[in-house]
Amino acid sequence: MNWQRARKPSQKAERTSAILDAAASLFDEKELADISMRDVAERAGVGKASLYHYFKTKEEVFLSLYGHELQAWLGGLEQRVGRLRKPTSTRVAAALVDELKLHPRLCRLKVVLSLVLERNLSDEAITEFKESLLAPTDRFVTLIHQSLPQLSHTAAKDFLFQYHAVVAGLWPMAHPTEQLAAILQEAKYREFRIDFYALLQRTLVKLLQPTEKGSQDAS
Amino acid sequence: MNWQRARKPSQKAERTSAILDAAASLFDEKELADISMRDVAERAGVGKASLYHYFKTKEEVFLSLYGHELQAWLGGLEQRVGRLRKPTSTRVAAALVDELKLHPRLCRLKVVLSLVLERNLSDEAITEFKESLLAPTDRFVTLIHQSLPQLSHTAAKDFLFQYHAVVAGLWPMAHPTEQLAAILQEAKYREFRIDFYALLQRTLVKLLQPTEKGSQDAS
Repeated sequence: MNWQRARKPSQKAERTSAILDAAASLFDEKELADISMRDVAERAGVGKASLYHYFKTKEEVFLSLYGHELQAWLGGLEQRVGRLRKPTSTRVAAALVDELKLHPRLCRLKVVLSLVLERNLSDEAITEFKESLLAPTDRFVTLIHQSLPQLSHTAAKDFLFQYHAVVAGLWPMAHPTEQLAAILQEAKYREFRIDFYALLQRTLVKLLQPTEKGSQDAS
Repeated sequence: MNWQRARKPSQKAERTSAILDAAASLFDEKELADISMRDVAERAGVGKASLYHYFKTKEEVFLSLYGHELQAWLGGLEQRVGRLRKPTSTRVAAALVDELKLHPRLCRLKVVLSLVLERNLSDEAITEFKESLLAPTDRFVTLIHQSLPQLSHTAAKDFLFQYHAVVAGLWPMAHPTEQLAAILQEAKYREFRIDFYALLQRTLVKLLQPTEKGSQDAS
C-alpha cells in the first residue's frame, strides 16, 4: 500500500479513479448498506487515511460515483438520440431504454440516491453534488426538447423527473430478492412479475407524448 | 401493561389494531430505520413478548400497516372515481391525486416498501403479503379500465405499476431533508424544487392517455 500522499493533480485523479472503480465493483457485488469505507479502501488499494482525504463519508463516495455514471450514460444517450433521423416518442423511448441497458449500476444508484442524500453528508458535499447536476440536467432537457419539439420545454423538464422517478421506483419492483422471486414463481402471482425494460419502454412512450388538448392542467 | 394473552378473536383484533396504530403514529414521527420493535411495543402498550406473538419482525408490522393503508386508500378512491359522471384522463388523474393527498403515510410506505421486502421476512410473511395484494390489484385495475375504457386491460395493469413506481420514486425527490431543502432554496437550484402533487397530476394524465397509433410496441 502506497502511503505517500498524492501531490500532483494527475496522481490525485488516479487515486480518485481507483477509489471510484473500487466503489463501483463493490456496488456490483453488494447493496450499499453492506459496503463500508474499509471495504472501499481495501479494494482501491489505498490506506483509510488516504481515502478519507478524498471522501469524508461513504455517501460522498457514492454521490461521486453517481455523477460519473450519469455522465457516461448521458454521453451515450446523446450519441444514440443524435443518430435518430426522425425521432418519435417510440424511438426516443427506445433510445433511452437501450442506453439504460448499458448502465444497470446507474439504475441501482438511482434507487438508493434519495436514501444516500439523507445522511452523513456535509452541506459542501451536497452543494457540490447538486451543482454537478446542473449541466447534465440542461443537456438532458435540451436533448428531449430538441428531438421531440412537440413537447414544450416545461414538458421536457417534467420528463426529466418523471424518467428518474420511474426508473428509481420500478427497478426494485422488477428486481425482487431471490426469496421474493421464488415466491412469485407461483402462477397466481404471475402479474407481479415485471419485465423492467419492456414496461419502461411502454411507460416512456406515454410520457413522451404530448398531453391531449382539453387535458391541459391550469397551472 | 396487560400481560394476559388475548384469547378471543376480538381481543386479538384489538391487540393488532393497537400495534398497527402505534406503528402508524411512530412512522408519522420518524423514518423506518429509526423505529424499533421496542418503540412499537411501548407505544402500543403491549409487552414485547405480546408483540412478537403477533409480528415476528418490524418488517412484518410495516407490511401489515401498508396493507391497511392500501385498503383505506382504495376504498376512498373507488368512491371518488365512482362519483365522476364523465371520466377523462384528467379527471381520473385528479381523483387519484386528491385521494392520495389524504394518505401521505401510504406514500411514505411505498417509498420504503421495496427495502422492507428485502430483509427479515419469513417466506410465510412475504407470501401472506403478496396474497393480500391480489384483490386490491384486481380492484384497482378494474376501476381504471372501467372508468377509462379506451385503456386496454393490459394498459390498465401497466398503469398500476407505473402509478406505484412514480409515487415511490417521486416522493423522495419532492420531499428533501431539511438540510437539502435549505440548499435548494438558492435560485440556481430552482428547477430541482418539485411540487409533488402538481407533477404527479401531470404525469398521471399522460399515463392514462391511450398510446398513439403507430406507437404500439410489438409485444
